[in-house]
Amino acid sequence: MKFNRPHTLAEIAALIGAGTEGDPDFPVLGMNEIHVVEPGDIVFVDHPKYYDKALGSRATVILINKKVSCPPGKALLLSDDPFRDFNRLTEHFRPFRPAPSQIDPSAVIGEGTVIQPNVFVGREVTIGKHCVIQPNVIIHDHCVLGDHVVVQSGTVVGSDAFYYKKRPEGYDRLRSGGRVILEDYVELGALCTIDRGVSGDTTIGRGSKLDNQVHVGHDTVIGQKCLIASQTGIAGCVVIEDEVTLWGQVGVTSAIRIGKGAVVLAQTGVSKSLEGGRTYFGSPAEEARERLKQLAALRQLSSMATRNKKL
Amino acid sequence: MKFNRPHTLAEIAALIGAGTEGDPDFPVLGMNEIHVVEPGDIVFVDHPKYYDKALGSRATVILINKKVSCPPGKALLLSDDPFRDFNRLTEHFRPFRPAPSQIDPSAVIGEGTVIQPNVFVGREVTIGKHCVIQPNVIIHDHCVLGDHVVVQSGTVVGSDAFYYKKRPEGYDRLRSGGRVILEDYVELGALCTIDRGVSGDTTIGRGSKLDNQVHVGHDTVIGQKCLIASQTGIAGCVVIEDEVTLWGQVGVTSAIRIGKGAVVLAQTGVSKSLEGGRTYFGSPAEEARERLKQLAALRQLSSMATRNKKL
Amino acid sequence: MKFNRPHTLAEIAALIGAGTEGDPDFPVLGMNEIHVVEPGDIVFVDHPKYYDKALGSRATVILINKKVSCPPGKALLLSDDPFRDFNRLTEHFRPFRPAPSQIDPSAVIGEGTVIQPNVFVGREVTIGKHCVIQPNVIIHDHCVLGDHVVVQSGTVVGSDAFYYKKRPEGYDRLRSGGRVILEDYVELGALCTIDRGVSGDTTIGRGSKLDNQVHVGHDTVIGQKCLIASQTGIAGCVVIEDEVTLWGQVGVTSAIRIGKGAVVLAQTGVSKSLEGGRTYFGSPAEEARERLKQLAALRQLSSMATRNKKL
Repeated sequence: MKFNRPHTLAEIAALIGAGTEGDPDFPVLGMNEIHVVEPGDIVFVDHPKYYDKALGSRATVILINKKVSCPPGKALLLSDDPFRDFNRLTEHFRPFRPAPSQIDPSAVIGEGTVIQPNVFVGREVTIGKHCVIQPNVIIHDHCVLGDHVVVQSGTVVGSDAFYYKKRPEGYDRLRSGGRVILEDYVELGALCTIDRGVSGDTTIGRGSKLDNQVHVGHDTVIGQKCLIASQTGIAGCVVIEDEVTLWGQVGVTSAIRIGKGAVVLAQTGVSKSLEGGRTYFGSPAEEARERLKQLAALRQLSSMATRNKKL
Repeated sequence: MKFNRPHTLAEIAALIGAGTEGDPDFPVLGMNEIHVVEPGDIVFVDHPKYYDKALGSRATVILINKKVSCPPGKALLLSDDPFRDFNRLTEHFRPFRPAPSQIDPSAVIGEGTVIQPNVFVGREVTIGKHCVIQPNVIIHDHCVLGDHVVVQSGTVVGSDAFYYKKRPEGYDRLRSGGRVILEDYVELGALCTIDRGVSGDTTIGRGSKLDNQVHVGHDTVIGQKCLIASQTGIAGCVVIEDEVTLWGQVGVTSAIRIGKGAVVLAQTGVSKSLEGGRTYFGSPAEEARERLKQLAALRQLSSMATRNKKL
Repeated sequence: MKFNRPHTLAEIAALIGAGTEGDPDFPVLGMNEIHVVEPGDIVFVDHPKYYDKALGSRATVILINKKVSCPPGKALLLSDDPFRDFNRLTEHFRPFRPAPSQIDPSAVIGEGTVIQPNVFVGREVTIGKHCVIQPNVIIHDHCVLGDHVVVQSGTVVGSDAFYYKKRPEGYDRLRSGGRVILEDYVELGALCTIDRGVSGDTTIGRGSKLDNQVHVGHDTVIGQKCLIASQTGIAGCVVIEDEVTLWGQVGVTSAIRIGKGAVVLAQTGVSKSLEGGRTYFGSPAEEARERLKQLAALRQLSSMATRNKKL
């Protein structure tokens, strides 16, 4: 999320009552997730395990719960509860204001685009030209659709991230203020859910096609010309490079990367990053030929066991 | 389901044309499923395999297709087809009357609650205070939502149970007359389906959070502070204790129990009850470290087989 | 898809600018997919691997990108791009005209059928008698529902097929002009997606019951009295014979057949055709008792490996 205008470090600190380390006039441009963060952005970190990763990231401002030494050219926001204060920033810059009408008057809809009945379009949504938005589709606030995009019936674009912090009194939700970006020629099947970013964008690249009942988590970035079959689920903060194929009912865990041109066979569970150009199978995922060898060895072992029992 | 008022055994018998065993003035308070039944309730049983379980349950009235000896303090309803007659009772006490309007005038909606466009709210639904009901959500008759509940776009609360009896002419549906109860601070993702109970309640406990595209079956009881990730499916009559975590695409079979604090890893298939406090993986589910040992042993076996072939 | 009237080969060739082989007055009745094609129909083929299958099928007209010798009693349509020209025919006979209203005036709805709020019914849909169509259901153009059909909330009947051809510039969609046929007494759960055929019909047979969040691909044919549990996904062009049971989260790959009375246990991945009358489990599917033997052998191997390590 980029702010409506650059804010000074001092302005941001005042909004959330944080201490600072660094020049109070330091310009802050936005806030984002660590795997896609850009210079000028804030990231937050509240666990010692991730301090180094956050401080060494491309982020310029680190919202942190420990007074560490500030890396050169960066600034710190000091808080006893960075999660709470990150939520406060989201609420400040993207306050929750439920759209009262089916198609919000602030939405921009390109020429030649067809919006079918019962579609909900939230605040400040942009839809390009020659799109087809089928019945009962929901497009939440701030989402951006390119040209020639197809969204089939009942699909939800811009649902909230499933991202909680465990507190003694229960789970505390990280508020979602980000967007979903569907580039030109993206096509989504029926009854998909595409979560928006918590502070960044969930992006589906030009020409990628999703089947029905696919789930894509918050801040995930899918490249161009990917093919994702029915009932596949992709968690948050995943990066999927161009021309990847995921067959049906695949699961992909959070914060990993799948390399260009990889093919992931049906029902595979991707639990760590995968190199491109190869074919994977199994839960957890392995190279398909390895997994098939294992299954053959197991079949042999089992028939030997049966023979032994008979003898 | 509790009846609108206590009925006598004789009244109930007259409604369905059943014979009786026991005091005709015996008070009957409601009807329910065996895993959550309470004194005063009717359960039904039509297979000899389950007679003892039904007669020994907490139910006070057993609707049964065999004249067995009646346990002390209980009563029997004798029927040639308990399934059909249980359906008749549901139809009598909760007749199917489709709500003609989007938000039924009998619904009670608490202050501070936001209902977004295209939401359907059925008859005699109760929604607490400070809830957010996103666009295209459907809340069927008699369901009860506490305070601070969030239901994301397109989710269905109170769909009918998938519960059939095979007859020579085809499948005969058990009618759903129960409710869904979402306690305070429950949050449901987008495009979930929560089946209502057939005669009891499907309950999700205070502070539990569900991701997108989760399915919860009829009469299932989920405890407090559970976390259930995307595309997980839970069958009917399951009991999930407090603080259980189910990761993505987990499947849980019907009529089992998952103990407090258990963690079930992604794509696991839970086919029998699990003790609390442990971590599980695999289809069928095993303790995760056992399953990982097996996978390591299989990899070793497979590479030995490959080496042998080369020699 | 049957055409509005029989066309001559010459008429069809003129519509798409194709060459012909065979009698120009040859009558052409419709177009269909190869696993359900009937005499009088066109099929298309654009890969040498499938030439023989297409030429030997029951189709009478083959739209093909190579001048092969025409089998007796058949005709050829010669095209440099059969995929593109098949799409042209679909567009000609079933042009995309989005229905502007919630319930199109051309829809035929039988007596005693209940249509709940927010339902979308497209052009020339036929719904039989005594059906219940729950809120937010979507029924796309030309679909046909028999009598006593139940469609639960939010389900999409007639979504477009997930069927693309890879071109240098990106994926090119095969247009869907077919239908969904739900025979008498079919019941669909909430939030299911049933794709229509690309040129043929997706059919669900009399008395079959689907749970919530089930996906059925294009041109798939499901027999009578089948039971399909929650979150199961069936790809396109599958044939499922009568009285098959698929438990939860099963996946079925495209263009295979499952024999009568087969039972497929939860989370199984069906990767090839299965004989009827047996029980299957695992990903990929095997006979359940074989798969369970393998799992037992693996457990034994793993505990032996652990003992060896200790010694």
